Amino acid sequence: MEVGFLGLGIMGKAMSLNLLRHGFKVTVWNRTVSRCDVLVEHGASVAETPAAVIKKCKYTIAMLSDPSAALSVVFDKDGVLEEICSGKGYIDMSTVDSDTSSKISEAITGKGGYFLEAPVSGSKKPAEDGQLVILAAGEKALYDEVIPAFDVLGKKSFFLGKVGNGAKMKLVVNMIMGSMMNAFSEGLVLAERSGLSQQTLLDIVDLGGIANPMFKQKGPAMIQSKFPPAFPLKHQQKDMRLALALGDENAVSMPVAAAANEAFKKARSLGLGDNDFSAVYEAVKIPDCSADA
Amino acid sequence: MEVGFLGLGIMGKAMSLNLLRHGFKVTVWNRTVSRCDVLVEHGASVAETPAAVIKKCKYTIAMLSDPSAALSVVFDKDGVLEEICSGKGYIDMSTVDSDTSSKISEAITGKGGYFLEAPVSGSKKPAEDGQLVILAAGEKALYDEVIPAFDVLGKKSFFLGKVGNGAKMKLVVNMIMGSMMNAFSEGLVLAERSGLSQQTLLDIVDLGGIANPMFKQKGPAMIQSKFPPAFPLKHQQKDMRLALALGDENAVSMPVAAAANEAFKKARSLGLGDNDFSAVYEAVKIPDCSADA
Amino acid sequence: MEVGFLGLGIMGKAMSLNLLRHGFKVTVWNRTVSRCDVLVEHGASVAETPAAVIKKCKYTIAMLSDPSAALSVVFDKDGVLEEICSGKGYIDMSTVDSDTSSKISEAITGKGGYFLEAPVSGSKKPAEDGQLVILAAGEKALYDEVIPAFDVLGKKSFFLGKVGNGAKMKLVVNMIMGSMMNAFSEGLVLAERSGLSQQTLLDIVDLGGIANPMFKQKGPAMIQSKFPPAFPLKHQQKDMRLALALGDENAVSMPVAAAANEAFKKARSLGLGDNDFSAVYEAVKIPDCSADA
Amino acid sequence: MEVGFLGLGIMGKAMSLNLLRHGFKVTVWNRTVSRCDVLVEHGASVAETPAAVIKKCKYTIAMLSDPSAALSVVFDKDGVLEEICSGKGYIDMSTVDSDTSSKISEAITGKGGYFLEAPVSGSKKPAEDGQLVILAAGEKALYDEVIPAFDVLGKKSFFLGKVGNGAKMKLVVNMIMGSMMNAFSEGLVLAERSGLSQQTLLDIVDLGGIANPMFKQKGPAMIQSKFPPAFPLKHQQKDMRLALALGDENAVSMPVAAAANEAFKKARSLGLGDNDFSAVYEAVKIPDCSADA
Repeated sequence: MEVGFLGLGIMGKAMSLNLLRHGFKVTVWNRTVSRCDVLVEHGASVAETPAAVIKKCKYTIAMLSDPSAALSVVFDKDGVLEEICSGKGYIDMSTVDSDTSSKISEAITGKGGYFLEAPVSGSKKPAEDGQLVILAAGEKALYDEVIPAFDVLGKKSFFLGKVGNGAKMKLVVNMIMGSMMNAFSEGLVLAERSGLSQQTLLDIVDLGGIANPMFKQKGPAMIQSKFPPAFPLKHQQKDMRLALALGDENAVSMPVAAAANEAFKKARSLGLGDNDFSAVYEAVKIPDCSADA
Repeated sequence: MEVGFLGLGIMGKAMSLNLLRHGFKVTVWNRTVSRCDVLVEHGASVAETPAAVIKKCKYTIAMLSDPSAALSVVFDKDGVLEEICSGKGYIDMSTVDSDTSSKISEAITGKGGYFLEAPVSGSKKPAEDGQLVILAAGEKALYDEVIPAFDVLGKKSFFLGKVGNGAKMKLVVNMIMGSMMNAFSEGLVLAERSGLSQQTLLDIVDLGGIANPMFKQKGPAMIQSKFPPAFPLKHQQKDMRLALALGDENAVSMPVAAAANEAFKKARSLGLGDNDFSAVYEAVKIPDCSADA
Repeated sequence: MEVGFLGLGIMGKAMSLNLLRHGFKVTVWNRTVSRCDVLVEHGASVAETPAAVIKKCKYTIAMLSDPSAALSVVFDKDGVLEEICSGKGYIDMSTVDSDTSSKISEAITGKGGYFLEAPVSGSKKPAEDGQLVILAAGEKALYDEVIPAFDVLGKKSFFLGKVGNGAKMKLVVNMIMGSMMNAFSEGLVLAERSGLSQQTLLDIVDLGGIANPMFKQKGPAMIQSKFPPAFPLKHQQKDMRLALALGDENAVSMPVAAAANEAFKKARSLGLGDNDFSAVYEAVKIPDCSADA
Repeated sequence: MEVGFLGLGIMGKAMSLNLLRHGFKVTVWNRTVSRCDVLVEHGASVAETPAAVIKKCKYTIAMLSDPSAALSVVFDKDGVLEEICSGKGYIDMSTVDSDTSSKISEAITGKGGYFLEAPVSGSKKPAEDGQLVILAAGEKALYDEVIPAFDVLGKKSFFLGKVGNGAKMKLVVNMIMGSMMNAFSEGLVLAERSGLSQQTLLDIVDLGGIANPMFKQKGPAMIQSKFPPAFPLKHQQKDMRLALALGDENAVSMPVAAAANEAFKKARSLGLGDNDFSAVYEAVKIPDCSADA
């Protein structure tokens, strides 16, 4: 199977290497051309523009850093739109908001092309290991055709229906995650103030029904007030806000998520926005020394 | 090693059987004598009163159904207090509030005995498999001496300091659990109202960093509005209330737990108190059919 | 003093009549011309277009029904923009969002005119009685010049600084109001479920430090589950959402407003959006008959 | 009409003076005898013990500082119980919890006496001016008989049914008050962070439908971070907790009150418990200088 690949950042490089290793013929493009070299060593072809990739390949995958990059490769000169046409498929795996996704979708389908949004859950390591979780939405026929590629890139892919559903599903998952992080932080602070060992709480939680990789991985750093940014708090808070807005649209009352969102806002106001979102623990912990009157 | 065992309910029976299987000599007592038979078949001795068990054994474990039963075997006629004395240890593994625990502790130590509260995390299956998690607090010397028994009963035991800390630690864990269940319920309702598949949300959550046994086990039943009571909602809400009260004592502000508690109260007001605590999902879901104006 | 007046709805009619009664010379315009008749009887002149009003008058006040009407009289053919120029002032007293207000402001000042946004607090009766509260923002010099008109229209006017501050101030006030309505509803439900008389609670509240016109006016209807729409719940909820968004922009954590907002959303989901915002009481009251388990 | 009066603190002194001024014959008792002098100057008789007051008077009013004092004058040697009997009425106007009230009620009625709990709303100034609001509950016949005294002490009295309802009604009112104070604080902080004048917000609020004496009186001090204790924050938070507990008993979900309670707890943790309850503003305001990332 032959595929195009736009964007060779940390994620894109790992993903296109996986495709090559599994026998796909891959034509790559990247804004900074030198990043193509290592792919070429593994057998990739290089094209000079996004349009050239589209022209050459029936299927093209994009993995760009943000919405503006995602828009740029499509709409700019020498972009995807210049060559997309009936019979060709474009799969955008970048994490973008649903507005961006809809804009790209309309442009592609307006030219007769097929479109799939396919944001992923998982970062560098899962990308390298082909262990991503893929949340695809858009043209079902295209999804079915590119399953061989998704099988190489991820441990599991889902088809979620119409364009926008991929982004929405990520919001729902991240909302649950954000509320859980608050619940965990409140528990850690309550333990400490009640004279219990936080480390022991971590150990006990990890042995029971609510044990999960996030608590296990972040807990030990949190109780040392360390929050190396895996997922920045300001982005988590933005996702909480967008999930609550999605709830507002559909008249869904979510008081726990709303309380969690306010705690993330408090953390932002404390200047913690660039830390990992587990830094909401610091907002819960204020003041450091309890002085009850 | 020889131990006494008071209380042969579902938990107590499983636990004393485990002790017998691992070579402990066990003297049992139960209010309803007939429940002792199966233990005798496995080699247990029977005593006629709690006092008789204490008299015969250096260490006695109790596993009673509730605080009033826990108090009764200690303070009533022919109870533990009549024979407890210096050199003897009493380990109460029942789940009781910290007041009850303190009352028993004072009585035992007042007679020169050693006391340990040791509530467990885990129910019937882990009890049978010797996979309980044991939260012990009280006399450290006694804890050290009975570790061989704890090793048989549980996969892990913790010594948490002074009497009361076992009960407190359970509250903290259950508070985190209750908030998580609310976060999960809100996510499930948001998914449905936003046109996403709940089953797919379950699948995606289970593949990521927040995957945990509770979501995995209860989720499929929840989205079918089934809530077979493993841990009744009214008990979960009581634990939320007590955890918030513990926070009140120590001036810890916990807005997410407070929001979750109010949702559990709403569920109680809907008559769901005897269902599993996952039935809070029904309170979040009201009204069943969204009718936005 | 001579002023133009655009828009003769319920509010505009009452306001322009007040100006006439206090000796102002007023030139009016309304989309439906017949609504001008009663003003003419009281001495008003009529102009055929918004542009004609601007051409004739140094100061023109607008009181339109919504943002689209407010934009239309400015930007459409024969609109304000065609005649506004240096030396002329335009005062928009319509309730519009800050984006609309900014758009109009830029257009007016781009032509050399002066601009003031001046939304009011108060509806029909205060408008008739000249008892509005005026929240003005924009060009201070213009504000100072039109104070004689504001003195006639309102019991009090405020100058709040740059354009947008009028809209923001309204959001802050409405947010406090929305949270208060929730607090009141919770109190009414708690009273009833605790076996206390709701009417007596109303009487007691009205005699104390938290007595206020809103509780006094809406309370008796609420406890009869009547919610005649003075300010529709869906608009109140929209203002809560916008106030929370303003807080988000400025990293202000507002957990009580957030909880109140979720209750309004619950009320919307129950189909109460077109009722008065006091109908949030119905959402708090669910279920009607408590059935605790 | 002749009445006994127990307790001559700030409130009791003002109240008994009012009774004397309106022609009541009053027999007073106070633990510190010297505080009786000024009452004697106004015509009061003095008795040496609570029992002696009861013996002499058909009706006795008590106004003690706290539950333990209220219990003490009834149950201690030379206390109320020694002389109370059929045909005599005891009216406790102290603010006590419903358990204390029930205990006293049972003791009085057990001796054949009549009992009324009658906590008041209002402090020193209203007590001096005879402008208290009286929340009476218990024996209706006794209430009817002492109305002449209540008419002198308060601007309004209410009969609320069975013993305990007076205390409950106070909790409901204070809960609404506590949530309102939080709503107000959030609004003040939002105004400041959004670049609006807090003083102007106070002025605008005071002109509209949510204007109330509490905002008017406390607002100006709050924005200067002054919180002279009229009603200490730690007591307000205790009342929120008790009101939420009353809601818990009756399965009433009150998410706004719960969020407000958590903010009061945060304020306590900051060492503000002895300030006026308006000091919750300081907890909302954290951090003083917003540093959003």
